[in-house]
Amino acid sequence: MQAVQAAGVEITSICGGEGWCGKCRVQLVLGELTSATGLEDEVLSEEEIENGWRLACQSQPLTHVKIDIPPESLTSLQRVQMEGDEGGFELDPVVIPVELHIEPPTLADQLSDVSRLKTALMERGVQSPQVKFPLLISLSSALRIQAWQVRLALRGEEVVGVFLPETPLFGLAVDIGTTKLAAYLVNLENGRTLARAGVANPQLAYGEDVISRIAYANQNETSRGVLQTRLVERMNDLVDELCLQVGVVKEQIIEAVMVGNTAMHHLFLGLPVRQLGEAPYIAAVSESVEVRAQDLGLHVAPGAYVYMPPNIAGFVGSDHVSMLLATEIAGKTSHDGSVVMALDVGTNTEISLAAAGRILSCSCASGPAFEGAHIHNGMRAASGAIEQVRMVTGDIHVQTIGGGLPVGICGSGILDAIAEMRKVGIIDGTGRLQKDAPGVRIGKHGGYFILVPASETGHGREIAITRKDIHEMQLAKGAIRTGINILMLEAGISYEDIDEFIIAGAFGTYLDIGNAVNIGMFPPLPLKRFKQVGNAAGIGAKQLLSSVTRRREAPEIIKRVEYVELTTHPLFTEIYIKALLF
Amino acid sequence: MQAVQAAGVEITSICGGEGWCGKCRVQLVLGELTSATGLEDEVLSEEEIENGWRLACQSQPLTHVKIDIPPESLTSLQRVQMEGDEGGFELDPVVIPVELHIEPPTLADQLSDVSRLKTALMERGVQSPQVKFPLLISLSSALRIQAWQVRLALRGEEVVGVFLPETPLFGLAVDIGTTKLAAYLVNLENGRTLARAGVANPQLAYGEDVISRIAYANQNETSRGVLQTRLVERMNDLVDELCLQVGVVKEQIIEAVMVGNTAMHHLFLGLPVRQLGEAPYIAAVSESVEVRAQDLGLHVAPGAYVYMPPNIAGFVGSDHVSMLLATEIAGKTSHDGSVVMALDVGTNTEISLAAAGRILSCSCASGPAFEGAHIHNGMRAASGAIEQVRMVTGDIHVQTIGGGLPVGICGSGILDAIAEMRKVGIIDGTGRLQKDAPGVRIGKHGGYFILVPASETGHGREIAITRKDIHEMQLAKGAIRTGINILMLEAGISYEDIDEFIIAGAFGTYLDIGNAVNIGMFPPLPLKRFKQVGNAAGIGAKQLLSSVTRRREAPEIIKRVEYVELTTHPLFTEIYIKALLF
Repeated sequence: MQAVQAAGVEITSICGGEGWCGKCRVQLVLGELTSATGLEDEVLSEEEIENGWRLACQSQPLTHVKIDIPPESLTSLQRVQMEGDEGGFELDPVVIPVELHIEPPTLADQLSDVSRLKTALMERGVQSPQVKFPLLISLSSALRIQAWQVRLALRGEEVVGVFLPETPLFGLAVDIGTTKLAAYLVNLENGRTLARAGVANPQLAYGEDVISRIAYANQNETSRGVLQTRLVERMNDLVDELCLQVGVVKEQIIEAVMVGNTAMHHLFLGLPVRQLGEAPYIAAVSESVEVRAQDLGLHVAPGAYVYMPPNIAGFVGSDHVSMLLATEIAGKTSHDGSVVMALDVGTNTEISLAAAGRILSCSCASGPAFEGAHIHNGMRAASGAIEQVRMVTGDIHVQTIGGGLPVGICGSGILDAIAEMRKVGIIDGTGRLQKDAPGVRIGKHGGYFILVPASETGHGREIAITRKDIHEMQLAKGAIRTGINILMLEAGISYEDIDEFIIAGAFGTYLDIGNAVNIGMFPPLPLKRFKQVGNAAGIGAKQLLSSVTRRREAPEIIKRVEYVELTTHPLFTEIYIKALLF
Repeated sequence: MQAVQAAGVEITSICGGEGWCGKCRVQLVLGELTSATGLEDEVLSEEEIENGWRLACQSQPLTHVKIDIPPESLTSLQRVQMEGDEGGFELDPVVIPVELHIEPPTLADQLSDVSRLKTALMERGVQSPQVKFPLLISLSSALRIQAWQVRLALRGEEVVGVFLPETPLFGLAVDIGTTKLAAYLVNLENGRTLARAGVANPQLAYGEDVISRIAYANQNETSRGVLQTRLVERMNDLVDELCLQVGVVKEQIIEAVMVGNTAMHHLFLGLPVRQLGEAPYIAAVSESVEVRAQDLGLHVAPGAYVYMPPNIAGFVGSDHVSMLLATEIAGKTSHDGSVVMALDVGTNTEISLAAAGRILSCSCASGPAFEGAHIHNGMRAASGAIEQVRMVTGDIHVQTIGGGLPVGICGSGILDAIAEMRKVGIIDGTGRLQKDAPGVRIGKHGGYFILVPASETGHGREIAITRKDIHEMQLAKGAIRTGINILMLEAGISYEDIDEFIIAGAFGTYLDIGNAVNIGMFPPLPLKRFKQVGNAAGIGAKQLLSSVTRRREAPEIIKRVEYVELTTHPLFTEIYIKALLF
């Protein structure tokens, strides 16, 4: 820990180096460290320790060492959920390498470069090899520079890249969130994730949620192009960062998978979103899309393709499909009749329920409250944000990201604060503040509760939860619970029937399940049936790079999904009003 | 004629309005003219007169009239051969229109736009319709603007355009010559050519022949891109001009066919040409290429494709293939065993010989002398160029393009001049000037012959044929005759066996066959076996727009063609030296 800090690296340390928060995880790459302490044995699994995972605050170098500090152990500007349950799947990459020695041309054998290449591939069993336009441009010089001894990247029967022998091929997977981008660099030959990078979606400046982003895109002739360009530019930065992390060149990235909700999907491709934002809310395309990276301005290999899995409906996008693939819920319900509910909690929350062989999906406008937006002292999940709140016998304990003094509160903190306030009776079941409860004040704009007094914050101003904050959280959790309840209703089940309740997404990973149940956001299932899976959309995207089989499953899932439009459901208002209560 | 001239239109008039040159051909569109005169009956065919073709100098309007003045009747900056024998072929266009009424989406039917379109097409019998990326961008708004009542452009099973009902669809055909571009706008539904436009190849500024053009492309990183950009820019100008001529918008051009020699083909696509310019002279690609117009920067419909037919070898390009298709020589030799020789005369001359079911092809570096380049008083075939020379009993008669005073001499004029000089004994069989012949002078750089004295030219300077000019012409005609002879040798025939001798290309159209035979450029066949077919490459390109069948024939021809490399032929030097003689 001391060495890392001395090197100027901002490593997370919530517990101040006491060894219990588990946030300063690092991975040993080279050299030797002291043996794992008892505290480390508690926080890390046996397998993780075997793979070199350690806590920086507990380990001391015994030799010169090289360690890898993953992004999630850094107090970066914003926490982006990168990790998740990888799940098991067959390695069966979409692009495979073929080593080839080609006979050079002579005056007696003037076959064109393309025909020569095709002939060589046909001799290797590729039935009707194809070479398309963008690759044509680089082919002739590549063959000659590499003296006719090449490694080809083969995508089905199409040659998409010509490399020096044994050049490793990489894939790029990006989860395009409304708020955040999470990018992964994957080795296509073994499916391993080599680098991760996360960053805010640059389109945030043009609208925080999907609806306002669509409104911006519709403003004038150029605004849609602006959104597309900003996004691709930022993605190119991410590509550079990923490549730098592991020392590869971006021309080795030969395939990309992008997932996102339908609006992000359309805005990334530069497709119109007007018809998506107005009833009857129609996607331009819902089938999977394959586009050349070049056509989108994405700087990877010139022959690379971008694959985007299919969308389910206007507001249930390919990110949710990707999550459904990663969590394998379709398989689960078909196999043993399990009932599985899966949520991707975010500014827009997508919910699927797999029951009795059916898959029902819906989308809830949960709003940006979970991102700390529209909240009085709200902030994103960054350093100094209150991420956890406990109230015991009049005492208030808060924990911040990075462990320093609080300067604001992020989504999981707000949920915690309100759940605890309800528990100790500061608010009632309708969300109203109890005027005579300790810490409650009445200001110009209504009541508020002082969570942290000015003397204990990082900026010397108090941090409060206002009546409006409580209302925002009610709207958010009410929307989600409404979605859950209507899906159960449509499937004809009650909550006790749910065998597994999967929660994905950054907020979903950090939220306190118990408190989410207490405020009525989730149904009151036994805690062990809940499963927080991290960035399942990102994991699914990676699987779609490494597995042709997964790509074949995507349209199959789409076909099975029944989309449930919530707002037109006859019981919507009734259920929604009930769901707003604590 | 007077009305046209009064309107400021520069119409060609070689005979000064006497009615015998036939160059002021116009077509009546609307109204009534005086009946055809006897002179017109001689110059124009019965069918032409029936179709409204007239000579401007012979016709007088009887009512208000509208006439069409084709480009070849204009004294444009440069004469580009646009016309040619159209030949008969089955109309079977590559892109066809489909009128479709689509049910609009509702909240109860939220199918995406692409799926909705595909469903409608499948109901119309298209088995697996496709919508690809570039069209996706415009699809959603197009469907809505046109209220779900659309005309689709269908290319095989791919939707390449969405139009208002009954919008006519057009095709663009371009013959990319080393020196000149000839472009045609074709109505895809009836195969008719609606407009033509010709212009110099803007790459001329970077090298007059293929070899120097390749050298320029290899100069540095950017030079290849410069050549591509200049060419496409000029082509976009041509598109604008064509569209203006007939009042269509370029977004209605839904398919393009480009033909050219292998170097022009590569430079248009932006492909490397280094390997084409060095032994063993290898094309990057010889198969047909299909590229989206957008990828090349060509401004036509966003979903349009550019098709380029296959190449035969490094120096026998798709323009020659296109000519072989248009002249149907493959079919001729297969049908009745005819022996057909076909030449496309230009800076590079391609020759094919169809005999006994075989097709042999070669390429000769005939050089730019036929374009007036590297000739002392040479100029392109533009206004004021001597295009015809006759010497009778000491008199020299010259005829210029446009009919004015001569200012230089173009290819057909040089050939005529030299043939006539040989006939009257001013030069001998080796090409040497006879010092004591009238008009022969000795200057600083050797001998020359005064063709037109200074007092009779447009610029007051004499026009002469130098020893070097004669040498240039010897090299050019020698190269062509060598190609002809080696092909005959390879096919085992002698010139008497040739049933048809087809000459295509601008120069090939204007040259005097008799004189070409006299100087030994062509074998001494009876004149009636020669056939000047005009821009056969351009005609072939148009057929490749209007006929799927023609496209299927292209690779078949390629398979049959045996390419003969002249320079490595054992008898090359011997034949070449003989062919240099007059």
